[in-house]
Amino acid sequence: MTNKATIEPRDPSSPPAKLSQRWRWASKGMIGFLMQQGVENPDVISLAAGLVDPGSLPVSTTRSAFQAMMADDALARTALQYGTTSGAMRLRKQLVSHLANREGMSPDDPRLGTDRFVLTTGSQQLLSLVAEVLFDPGDICLVASPTYFVFLGVLDGVGARAIPVATDENGMQPAALESELQRLKGVGELDRVKLVYLVSDFENPSGYCLSDDRRQAVLEIARRWSREHRLFVLEDAAYRELRYDGSPQTSLLNMDPDGEHVIHAGTFSKSFSPGLRVGFGVVPADLHQAVCVRKGNEDFGSANFNQHLLATVFEQGLYGPHVESVRDAYRVKRDAMLTAADRYFSDIPGVHWMHPEGGLYVWMSLPEEIATGFDSELFHHTVHETGMMYVPGEICFASGDPNGDDRPTNHMRLSFGVQDPAGIDEAMKRLATSVRAMR
Amino acid sequence: MTNKATIEPRDPSSPPAKLSQRWRWASKGMIGFLMQQGVENPDVISLAAGLVDPGSLPVSTTRSAFQAMMADDALARTALQYGTTSGAMRLRKQLVSHLANREGMSPDDPRLGTDRFVLTTGSQQLLSLVAEVLFDPGDICLVASPTYFVFLGVLDGVGARAIPVATDENGMQPAALESELQRLKGVGELDRVKLVYLVSDFENPSGYCLSDDRRQAVLEIARRWSREHRLFVLEDAAYRELRYDGSPQTSLLNMDPDGEHVIHAGTFSKSFSPGLRVGFGVVPADLHQAVCVRKGNEDFGSANFNQHLLATVFEQGLYGPHVESVRDAYRVKRDAMLTAADRYFSDIPGVHWMHPEGGLYVWMSLPEEIATGFDSELFHHTVHETGMMYVPGEICFASGDPNGDDRPTNHMRLSFGVQDPAGIDEAMKRLATSVRAMR
Repeated sequence: MTNKATIEPRDPSSPPAKLSQRWRWASKGMIGFLMQQGVENPDVISLAAGLVDPGSLPVSTTRSAFQAMMADDALARTALQYGTTSGAMRLRKQLVSHLANREGMSPDDPRLGTDRFVLTTGSQQLLSLVAEVLFDPGDICLVASPTYFVFLGVLDGVGARAIPVATDENGMQPAALESELQRLKGVGELDRVKLVYLVSDFENPSGYCLSDDRRQAVLEIARRWSREHRLFVLEDAAYRELRYDGSPQTSLLNMDPDGEHVIHAGTFSKSFSPGLRVGFGVVPADLHQAVCVRKGNEDFGSANFNQHLLATVFEQGLYGPHVESVRDAYRVKRDAMLTAADRYFSDIPGVHWMHPEGGLYVWMSLPEEIATGFDSELFHHTVHETGMMYVPGEICFASGDPNGDDRPTNHMRLSFGVQDPAGIDEAMKRLATSVRAMR
Repeated sequence: MTNKATIEPRDPSSPPAKLSQRWRWASKGMIGFLMQQGVENPDVISLAAGLVDPGSLPVSTTRSAFQAMMADDALARTALQYGTTSGAMRLRKQLVSHLANREGMSPDDPRLGTDRFVLTTGSQQLLSLVAEVLFDPGDICLVASPTYFVFLGVLDGVGARAIPVATDENGMQPAALESELQRLKGVGELDRVKLVYLVSDFENPSGYCLSDDRRQAVLEIARRWSREHRLFVLEDAAYRELRYDGSPQTSLLNMDPDGEHVIHAGTFSKSFSPGLRVGFGVVPADLHQAVCVRKGNEDFGSANFNQHLLATVFEQGLYGPHVESVRDAYRVKRDAMLTAADRYFSDIPGVHWMHPEGGLYVWMSLPEEIATGFDSELFHHTVHETGMMYVPGEICFASGDPNGDDRPTNHMRLSFGVQDPAGIDEAMKRLATSVRAMR
């Protein structure tokens, strides 16, 4: 995990490359280290990777949609040609219907207008674009705690400060958000606060859902604290369609009366196929142009072919049944992980874990004295002794203390996405063996 | 073409969004205005769009490759799963063979190692990534004059300064590059110079190719002027495979003895399908990590599915014959445009145009007193009176004068990519009518 202003060439006769300040900020990212561990230790069973269930990938569905699309010569040529920066209108129209239906909104609701959609390379690109257009170095993003560690890297990359807001099983605490804004006002930094970020459904990594009353409260706070400029709420809904039990909360998108405060990020990576890399944003009208201008510089449009392929999936009625099969597969794996947790951890004192109603992750907490980080004895033990891997919880926290590091060190994110139930059981058994060895 | 620090919401009760400095820099981009003109004036024949020939799109080739890929269940699942940030190894290996063969290099040449490749969303994303990791605000990029206007927008977006270097039919002039570096040294700005950018083959918009001796000279200058830090040369080879006559120059990639100075950008948008949006970079070893870290924040990988699809196109031997058919189609259209230029413009005094051996553009110069810009009488006349559209040449020049605007105003980029020969002839006829009306 180098973080140098210059990097040395192999040929010592060449002077070093001098890289940008932004690159130096960005280079703190941890995901490369995690992937490297996986590659160098192929025998570990990984509960770290955020990949999806390989058995549920839409092989036959994609084949059907492709054949339908390519049978229409004009459509085939449209799909193989350049698209537009904001994305194929055919898919945007399908998304209006899909979101209207899913969220109980009217398809004519202006908050779901096709002009509010931007189609991106996964929802990750939407998160990055929002950060690019909103944040100057030193600006502030208030984040759930814990939250999606890759977005914390994005904030680093633009020089923004992530400030954690206390979060529990019902999501971000409105009282904590309110008092943090009060504090920032007191120190004269309110004008630097641009965004509240949270994964509204089955937060990555904790599995927490923001409860309905807290959604209302968070939105009300964002509206009330929009003073000189607007304070946006970025609702990362990547896992919203992966609910296995219980009833969904209302989306923040639907709660925002004027459609001016909520940026909604969605993706088909989890519910359909990450290899197609189709994500989207529903963006307040006046922010949409800014996001598209920035995207114009980055790539002037994500793959048009994939957008048309997915539009065909919707048109042919193939999406709903596929998502249902994905949910069925993950429900079994979520249950396998929770059963294994009961089996192997219930007699280890001080170990707790969440029972998520959806998403891909179980969040496990160890006694405070057992550290889980990359440099910890436990991480080393799981990778090199028992043969499994997890995501250390500490990388999912923003530090509340700019002069130190007050991040909790005793959590783990355990993903049930990739492994089959037997693999999940074996990995959990190995993890328990390692945890016992730490005591 | 708004360029405001804040943008007003529709709902007057909401305060405005406060956007980043980088967004304000980026928002000077012109491509949106051009596209809007096209949408609002559907009856114009556009020689402006950079789209490719619709008739040459690989409908049957894509079908064959898709069927081969999806017939292998393991490969199908790999393609539909997440890939890696730097891109599918299967395609990178095919690219090593392809470039080795095309450039007369050994496939074992370390300058073509798979670890030097990064697969991107079109080559546009590679250009943007390089700008992100190299430039701090105020840093300098030396560019051909004229050059690719979208890259000038990318430089604006990171706050970099584009300084034009005199360019003629043989490409960027080494003597002018040398003297600009001398001048920058004299004013104490040599440490801000990070990159030389040029489209080495059939420069967009001029159609110029950088001659072999100038390639050697530009590279030698970059090496010699690498003092405290390295000066890179970004060889944008987007059009390299679209040569219709004559023999290719040696690539800068192949001329760079240590592989430390040249960044080579390529794409399959022009030679195969822009809808797949697969581009790539061959990047000096020590810059590769930086580019991938940045890409990790932006999207952690372009569409894996498309990379595997294209790898299959190569494996099945389908790429070469397709590119041959693309070249045949464009040769006819290039000739149609040159014939039309002779027919309609040869008796208009002071009008000149290039005869490109490849690429997609004919660069036409009018008498200096006839302005071609978006606000010009000519542009208005072509869009609203005769019914055609071109790209004004002035947006393809960096301004050499930071306090003014010394960009030439009498050029046009005319694309023969989209229209068929009859459409090209008609558009050229209309353009000539408009030009005559200006005299």
